[in-house]
Amino acid sequence: MGFVRNAWYVAGWSSEFGGDLRAITILEQNIVTFRAADGRVVALEDRCPHRLLPLSKGKRLGDTIQCGYHGMTFDGAGRCVRIPGQDRIPANAYVTAYPIEERHDIVWIWMGDPAQADPARLFNMPEFSDPRWHAHQGEALHLKSNYLNVAENLVDPAHVSFVHPTTLGNAASENVPVQVDTEGDPIVAWRWIRDSAPIGFFKNFGNFQGTVDRWHYYYLHLPCTAVIDFGSSDAAARLAEEDRDQGVRIFALHFMTPVNAQYTIDRWMHLRNTAQGDDAVSAQMDAMFNIAFAEDKAILEAIQEEENRPQQRPPVRLLIDKASNVYRKRIDDLVAAERPAA
Amino acid sequence: MGFVRNAWYVAGWSSEFGGDLRAITILEQNIVTFRAADGRVVALEDRCPHRLLPLSKGKRLGDTIQCGYHGMTFDGAGRCVRIPGQDRIPANAYVTAYPIEERHDIVWIWMGDPAQADPARLFNMPEFSDPRWHAHQGEALHLKSNYLNVAENLVDPAHVSFVHPTTLGNAASENVPVQVDTEGDPIVAWRWIRDSAPIGFFKNFGNFQGTVDRWHYYYLHLPCTAVIDFGSSDAAARLAEEDRDQGVRIFALHFMTPVNAQYTIDRWMHLRNTAQGDDAVSAQMDAMFNIAFAEDKAILEAIQEEENRPQQRPPVRLLIDKASNVYRKRIDDLVAAERPAA
Amino acid sequence: MGFVRNAWYVAGWSSEFGGDLRAITILEQNIVTFRAADGRVVALEDRCPHRLLPLSKGKRLGDTIQCGYHGMTFDGAGRCVRIPGQDRIPANAYVTAYPIEERHDIVWIWMGDPAQADPARLFNMPEFSDPRWHAHQGEALHLKSNYLNVAENLVDPAHVSFVHPTTLGNAASENVPVQVDTEGDPIVAWRWIRDSAPIGFFKNFGNFQGTVDRWHYYYLHLPCTAVIDFGSSDAAARLAEEDRDQGVRIFALHFMTPVNAQYTIDRWMHLRNTAQGDDAVSAQMDAMFNIAFAEDKAILEAIQEEENRPQQRPPVRLLIDKASNVYRKRIDDLVAAERPAA
Repeated sequence: MGFVRNAWYVAGWSSEFGGDLRAITILEQNIVTFRAADGRVVALEDRCPHRLLPLSKGKRLGDTIQCGYHGMTFDGAGRCVRIPGQDRIPANAYVTAYPIEERHDIVWIWMGDPAQADPARLFNMPEFSDPRWHAHQGEALHLKSNYLNVAENLVDPAHVSFVHPTTLGNAASENVPVQVDTEGDPIVAWRWIRDSAPIGFFKNFGNFQGTVDRWHYYYLHLPCTAVIDFGSSDAAARLAEEDRDQGVRIFALHFMTPVNAQYTIDRWMHLRNTAQGDDAVSAQMDAMFNIAFAEDKAILEAIQEEENRPQQRPPVRLLIDKASNVYRKRIDDLVAAERPAA
Repeated sequence: MGFVRNAWYVAGWSSEFGGDLRAITILEQNIVTFRAADGRVVALEDRCPHRLLPLSKGKRLGDTIQCGYHGMTFDGAGRCVRIPGQDRIPANAYVTAYPIEERHDIVWIWMGDPAQADPARLFNMPEFSDPRWHAHQGEALHLKSNYLNVAENLVDPAHVSFVHPTTLGNAASENVPVQVDTEGDPIVAWRWIRDSAPIGFFKNFGNFQGTVDRWHYYYLHLPCTAVIDFGSSDAAARLAEEDRDQGVRIFALHFMTPVNAQYTIDRWMHLRNTAQGDDAVSAQMDAMFNIAFAEDKAILEAIQEEENRPQQRPPVRLLIDKASNVYRKRIDDLVAAERPAA
Repeated sequence: MGFVRNAWYVAGWSSEFGGDLRAITILEQNIVTFRAADGRVVALEDRCPHRLLPLSKGKRLGDTIQCGYHGMTFDGAGRCVRIPGQDRIPANAYVTAYPIEERHDIVWIWMGDPAQADPARLFNMPEFSDPRWHAHQGEALHLKSNYLNVAENLVDPAHVSFVHPTTLGNAASENVPVQVDTEGDPIVAWRWIRDSAPIGFFKNFGNFQGTVDRWHYYYLHLPCTAVIDFGSSDAAARLAEEDRDQGVRIFALHFMTPVNAQYTIDRWMHLRNTAQGDDAVSAQMDAMFNIAFAEDKAILEAIQEEENRPQQRPPVRLLIDKASNVYRKRIDDLVAAERPAA
C-alpha cells in the first residue's frame, strides 16, 4: 500500500483557512497553511530546514513565516528571505511549497510534482454551479483507518442493508445484487430496489405515501473522491434510470484525505434537488448522515485493528467486491508508476 | 517463549457466558463466544474472513452470527450459511471453531488441533465432587505479565515469606528449604514449617490457640493450572504428611489464561474442608486472597517491565528455582514439539 | 548518537536524597539510591539478578536492600550478603554499584568504568565557595528531548531573541553575530549587545535607568554541563569584557541528565553577584527562568517529534551553529572511543 502523490486532495473547506498559521498533515507530510493578504491559501512544508522546528510554532509576518527558534523566514513560495546574523542564504535553505486551488468553497492541495499540478484535473460537478441544486458542507469525519478501506466502503452498495438499517438501508435490499462498471474513471457500483418501503432518509425527506423505487449509485473517482447518488420516487411512476432528477435526489460527496496509513479524514457534503435554501432540512440531513457515518467509523476502525494483527489466511472475496478490487488494483498501479525507477 | 496450543485452557467461569456475543482473547487469538439454545458454549474465530470485521461486532441470529458489515452468517461450527447477494459459498468462507468443554462451572477451550481435544485431559480433582469440600469461585486477576512468570510464582513456596507477610507467609519460613519433585506432572514444590505462629490466614480461619504445623504444597500442572494445597494444624498433633485432611486444609486453584505474551488472566478459586456453605467465610477468604494476589501482581508486572528492557547478563539461578526451571524446560519442549517440521 | 559513559552526571540535588529507596534512571540504566547511615549516597543497579525485580520495590534493612520477591539482600557495594534458604552465594549474585560524589549540595554519579571515576574531574567553579556570590538551586526541567538538542540550545546565544523575547532576549540582538571559541573545553559562544534597552531580566533586577551593555557567554562543558554567564551594566560605563563582575552578573547553570535517548532532565540553578541572601529575589528569578525554560521545552519537544519522523534532506547549517557542530563532533568521538574494539 502507499499513496498516490500526483493528485489533488482536499486540504479543507474554505472556511477552515484564515489568517492564522494552521498545521495539517496529509500523506504523512506536515504542512503549515495560512490565507495570505491577497486571499490565496499558502501551504508550506511545516519544518524549518535548520533545526526542524515546525514553522507552525513560529509566527506570521506579513505573507512570510518566521521560525520560532532562530528567526529564519520563508515566503509563500517556500524561499528563505532572511537568516538573522548572516547575509548569505544557502541554496538548501527553503521549504517545499504545495500548489493550492480553491473552488466551490473547497481548498485543494497537490501533493506530488508541482509541474503536474493541472487545475483542469480538479474534481468538479455541474451541479455545483446549478441553481436548482442546493449544496451543503457537512463535517470532517476522523477515522483511524487507512483510506483504502474508507474508499472501499464508499463504492459498496451492499453494506447499507446491514450497517445503516435506520437511515440509508433496510432489509428489502439485502439480497439485491450489485451492478458495476469498472471500465472508466469513476468506477461505478449501483443497484435499484424497486417497489419497497422507503428507507429512513426518505421517510423523512420524501413525503412518500406508499412504496418507492430507490437507487444507490456509487461513483469512486481515483484516488480519493466518492459521490453517492441516491434517491427515491413513487414506485407507481416506474422511474427510468436516466430520469433520476425527477425523484428526490441527493448526491453525498466524500473527500478522503489520507493523513497517514492509519488515519483518514473524510469531509462530507451533499447536493440535493429538494428543499433549496432550507437550513433546517440541511441540519436534519446532517443529523442522519452523522448517525450513518458513525456506524461506518465503528466498522472501519475495528477492521483497521484487525488488519494490524497477523493474518493467517488470505481474505475471502465475494461478488460484491468487484468495484473495490478494481479500485485497489488501480491505486497499486498508480503508486507503482510514481515510484522512481531503480 | 511461546504457547502450548494442544491444551485445555480456561475460557472463563460458566457464569461469564450468556446468550450475548462476547469477545475474548486467548493465546493472541480473538474469539467470539455465546451460549447456544441447547446450553452449550460456542467459540469461533472473531474475524469475518471477508473484510476482517470482528464477528462480535455483528449480531446473533438464533445459533448463528451475522457479520455486521455485509451480513455473512456463520453457524456454531464456523461454517458460512449465508452470503447476501450471492448463492455460491466459497470453500474458504468459514471461521475456526474451538472445542469447548464445561465442567464444575468452568468453561474450557482447546486452542490447538481439534482432533486432539480429548475431554479426558481436562483438569479434575476428586474434591470437586466431594460434599465434604466446599468450592468457591473467586475473581479474574488481570496481569500485565507473561504466563511463565505467573506460573513460576505459583510453584514457588519461598516467595510467600517476603511477598505475603500478612496473609500467606511470615518470617518463620524465610530460611526453611524447599523440597521438589519434578519427575511427574504435576511438578511439586513443598515445605512444612513446624511449630511456629500461625500465618494471617490461619489466625482468621483456624481458631488456633498456640503454635501450628503449617504446610504449603504447590502443584503445577502443565501448561497453566496450579493447585496450592496449604493448611495448618495444632503443633501438638504432630500431623503426618498424609493426614493433611485432619487439619484446616485449603486448595487454592489458579487457572492461567495467556492472553498474549505480555498479558495473562489468572482465575482463582478455592476448595476447603472447613466452613462448608458459609458465604461469609468465602468472602473473608476472597478478601485475604485479594490482598495477596495484588502483592503478586505488583511484582510480576514490575518484572515484566524489566524483562522488556535489555539484559546485560544472564540471571542468577538459586536452589529455590528448581521446580521453575523444570517447568520452563518442559514448556519449551512442548512448544518445540508443536512447531511444524521445517 | 549515544551516551558518554565515563563522565560525572548529576543524579540530583542533595535534598532529593533521603533514607528511603528512590528509583532514578540515567543513560537508560535503572538505579536505586538511598542515603546510608554515614550520610553517603548509595547507588545500585535497580534490578535483582535473580528474577529482575527492581530492588526499589524491596525494602531497606540498615545499609542493605532486601529484594521484595525472595529476600536476596545487597550491601552498598552491590555484594549479595544473604540468600534465604541457601548458604552458598554464587559469584554472579551482585548488582552494579555506581561511584557517587557529593559537592556543593549536588550529587554526582559516574556512569562508566568505576576505576576511572576521578573526583578531580567533577565540575566546579570558584564562585561556589565565594561569599560574594549567592547560589540558588532551581528546579528539574523534564524534557521529552534527547540531550544533544538540549545542550545545543545551551550553547546558542542566537535563539534568545526569538524564543525568550520577554525575559532573556529582545529584538536588539537579532542580527548581532555570535563569536565562538571551540578550541578548548568548555566550548564558548558569546556576544555583546551594546547600548540597547535592557532585557526583561535586567528591567527587574538591575534597576537600570537608561541603555545598557549586555553580554551572554555560553560555556558548554562536555558532556552535559552548561554555564550561561549573562549580565548588564550601564552603557555609559563602557564595561570591558574582563570587568563583568562590576556589572550585574548571573551564572545560570544547567546540569543535563540524559534519562534515555528521548528524555532529559535539566536541573538548573544560578549564582549571582547581587541580592545575596535575598530569597524574594531568588523566587522572582526562578519565575522568570521558568517562563524562559518552558519556552525552550516547547521548542525542544517539537523538534524531537520531528527528528523521530523520516528526514527527506539533510538539515541546513548556519554560521550560528559552529559551537553546536563542534560539540556534537566531540560527543561522537567520545562515544566512539568508549566502544569496545571489534
